[in-house]
Amino acid sequence: MTPQGEDFSAWYNELVAKAQLVDRGPARGTMVIRPYGYRLWELLQAELDRRIKDTGHENAYFPMLIPESYLRREAEHVEGFSPELAVVTHAGGKELEEPLIVRPTSETIIGEMMAKWVSSHRDLPLLLNQWANVVRWELRPRMFLRTTEFLWQEGHTAHADEADAMRETMLALDLYTEVARDIAAIPVVPGEKTPGERFAGAVRTYTIEGMMRDGKALQAGTSHYMGTNFAEAFDIRYTSGTGRLEPCHTTSWGMTTRMIGAVIMTHGDDKGLVLPPRLAPYQVVVVPIGRGDQLERTSAAARELADRLKAAGVRAHVDDRAQLSPGFRFNDWELRGVPVRLELGPRDLESGTVVMVRRLGDEGKQSIPVSSAPDVIPGLLEEFQEFLLRRATAFRDGHTAAADSWDVFVEVVASGWASALHCGAPACEDDIKAKTAATPRCIPLDGAAETGRCVHCGEPSAYGKRVLFGRAY
Amino acid sequence: MTPQGEDFSAWYNELVAKAQLVDRGPARGTMVIRPYGYRLWELLQAELDRRIKDTGHENAYFPMLIPESYLRREAEHVEGFSPELAVVTHAGGKELEEPLIVRPTSETIIGEMMAKWVSSHRDLPLLLNQWANVVRWELRPRMFLRTTEFLWQEGHTAHADEADAMRETMLALDLYTEVARDIAAIPVVPGEKTPGERFAGAVRTYTIEGMMRDGKALQAGTSHYMGTNFAEAFDIRYTSGTGRLEPCHTTSWGMTTRMIGAVIMTHGDDKGLVLPPRLAPYQVVVVPIGRGDQLERTSAAARELADRLKAAGVRAHVDDRAQLSPGFRFNDWELRGVPVRLELGPRDLESGTVVMVRRLGDEGKQSIPVSSAPDVIPGLLEEFQEFLLRRATAFRDGHTAAADSWDVFVEVVASGWASALHCGAPACEDDIKAKTAATPRCIPLDGAAETGRCVHCGEPSAYGKRVLFGRAY
Repeated sequence: MTPQGEDFSAWYNELVAKAQLVDRGPARGTMVIRPYGYRLWELLQAELDRRIKDTGHENAYFPMLIPESYLRREAEHVEGFSPELAVVTHAGGKELEEPLIVRPTSETIIGEMMAKWVSSHRDLPLLLNQWANVVRWELRPRMFLRTTEFLWQEGHTAHADEADAMRETMLALDLYTEVARDIAAIPVVPGEKTPGERFAGAVRTYTIEGMMRDGKALQAGTSHYMGTNFAEAFDIRYTSGTGRLEPCHTTSWGMTTRMIGAVIMTHGDDKGLVLPPRLAPYQVVVVPIGRGDQLERTSAAARELADRLKAAGVRAHVDDRAQLSPGFRFNDWELRGVPVRLELGPRDLESGTVVMVRRLGDEGKQSIPVSSAPDVIPGLLEEFQEFLLRRATAFRDGHTAAADSWDVFVEVVASGWASALHCGAPACEDDIKAKTAATPRCIPLDGAAETGRCVHCGEPSAYGKRVLFGRAY
Repeated sequence: MTPQGEDFSAWYNELVAKAQLVDRGPARGTMVIRPYGYRLWELLQAELDRRIKDTGHENAYFPMLIPESYLRREAEHVEGFSPELAVVTHAGGKELEEPLIVRPTSETIIGEMMAKWVSSHRDLPLLLNQWANVVRWELRPRMFLRTTEFLWQEGHTAHADEADAMRETMLALDLYTEVARDIAAIPVVPGEKTPGERFAGAVRTYTIEGMMRDGKALQAGTSHYMGTNFAEAFDIRYTSGTGRLEPCHTTSWGMTTRMIGAVIMTHGDDKGLVLPPRLAPYQVVVVPIGRGDQLERTSAAARELADRLKAAGVRAHVDDRAQLSPGFRFNDWELRGVPVRLELGPRDLESGTVVMVRRLGDEGKQSIPVSSAPDVIPGLLEEFQEFLLRRATAFRDGHTAAADSWDVFVEVVASGWASALHCGAPACEDDIKAKTAATPRCIPLDGAAETGRCVHCGEPSAYGKRVLFGRAY
């Protein structure tokens, strides 16, 4: 496999295929998510879905095919999405009177339904979520990161006023920050997007940004406050307690299969994937060693050990593929990022021990009593999870620097993120991008109050705090 | 609401809307699955997904957009699906060189990928499953039963030989039978389809058939043995242990959101839905009664009771909508099919009791000590689940009869199912359908060996056993 340092992009493309996460689909930019990749998605999905439900949202499902006219009702929205649409023009053997769009996102069709369902202030807030596939035509596809079809959840909510809608917008951002940090071990930075980077139709867009191991930023989830833009366009109105007809304030927020790409590029190394235990399809793989009769005995012991690990709540797997050498199997599970490998040979059987190897973070092998494995492993997995978050945080912080001059800015964004004051002018953002490929990733929520001069043009700074700049996926 | 006996179809259409299960989508034949309906689907999905995984299958995800040419590779398959296809002809602002089909089912694209993934007998069996949306253009849509877009799981597996593929085909049918019976309380009849009712491209098709309360049959899940049809069309081959290149034998099997329609029409009555506890979004609803201060006290007690029920593993909900009368709320939850209602008024508070009302199966109200509710309710829900299955089984058996003459056949299929000998000729099936609207639903797996004369044409019977005929959805 190409080393990260030589060509990060080649490393990524080779790894997602070799680790059997994904395969190319036949239609442009589509992907097949293979079982190992899909299991990662399922585990992430379960964590996110539980939090979405615990905070009072309900799942629903809306049609994928949307009349073209719906998209035209919100001017910025249609402008933003038009170049990416896939259009059904024929169905049931006939040309359709009105073409149908394959949803690129569902604000419009959900807005149409919200208008039917909301009439009184008692119907608010309306807190909906959908797990679905969406299609956005991609000219430069990258597996997981930018694919023509991807999977996601999209939250859509309606509220009586701005304050309640903004509380919701920030709640969703908090959920994403928590899932990214606590489950995917990615120390994302939550913040607001500058106006130029807003979602098509939003009043304010918030994002979580993660740093990949090449120093680039990846937007890993977004949350939008729509104001009354969609409520006006789709007539989502309610009668207030005083009997007045008012437009709702709406939000939307999404996290996608792109998160799998974020996990790969945050933790992976030249040996392959490194999976956080909470997302790892297999947290432990037990590899029995030996030939013939010996392999039968070590395999039986491996299965017994795996069963005891499963009973202790560990996702364990036995790799007893007799046609493959132990070394091949060790490398294979390193490539596929399993946090802990247990090797079980004939001599281990005799001594009642098992050889334990962590995917990262310590050197060499350790022999432990096989009887203690179910007690030892869960704690080890927790430590490994925390280790990955610490390591990624250190990497992020080591590649982030304040930039108070243009020279420093240019140097910092070549390999990481620059924290800089900016004037807020879109034209100045464009200039910076043209010169350095860096864009404003976000205005971090926890940034300290600060004003001064724009790092690029010298005009007075906007936002009252620093902006994080970096090259991005 | 229109009574079932007056117009079953009107009853169904009104109920799915009033119970807030579903709403019409804007594109022809599409549906919006509202939170209450979607929760039913999620609960069914969880039960089915667990069984699919426990039997060694892995979930994956394949692109929704399939090149038109793929569908043409299996002659019967394309013939069967062509009239129902939705076609993407434009994307990214341009006309596509080759149109893309929105998947009506995924045999073709999964076949193409299986061909890449299978090379040795060691790669078999390959046991995949996908949860997805599919589109089949519907000219006569009915919510849940026949919609242009629906949700389903589709299992797709590849095997070394017919015996293994047939074992898989029957395993999937068993899973469906078990989920329908034990979770949805629908006593389905598993059996084989006659050749005229086979899936497009299958060698053998199996089905589970449920009887709705109007005596009609509903196909609630199907499992297909494809022989080597798709393996030959997509070049899914493996090298056997002796080094020969052999085509795989494949299967596919699916269960859909149609199952929600089956639940509604198997158990519902003139008051509304009747939900089996294992699928009910709320198994118990607690309705506090009173005005002003009283309502605050009963509501607090209701929430405490609901929390204790939840701790006992019961899905409980408190309906404290102060603007609605108790009677309105009682009717609302009857309409929405909640198995058990608990009423909590000021006098109940004083006496430490709660009034318990079952949705069906006993008369009147029962007062129980509120402290005993968490102990009593789980058993009551189990009993209710069993009661629904018993009632549906009695209904099915009461509306199924052997028919050994044409006159009896005609009478039986007017209100239920006829078990009859049939010659197996497609033309004779067509005649029966033209005269009675009844079709062969299946050749039940557990049917006793029997031969004789066709109930319609008098020719010698086929299949070696009786066929179940009925009108169908």
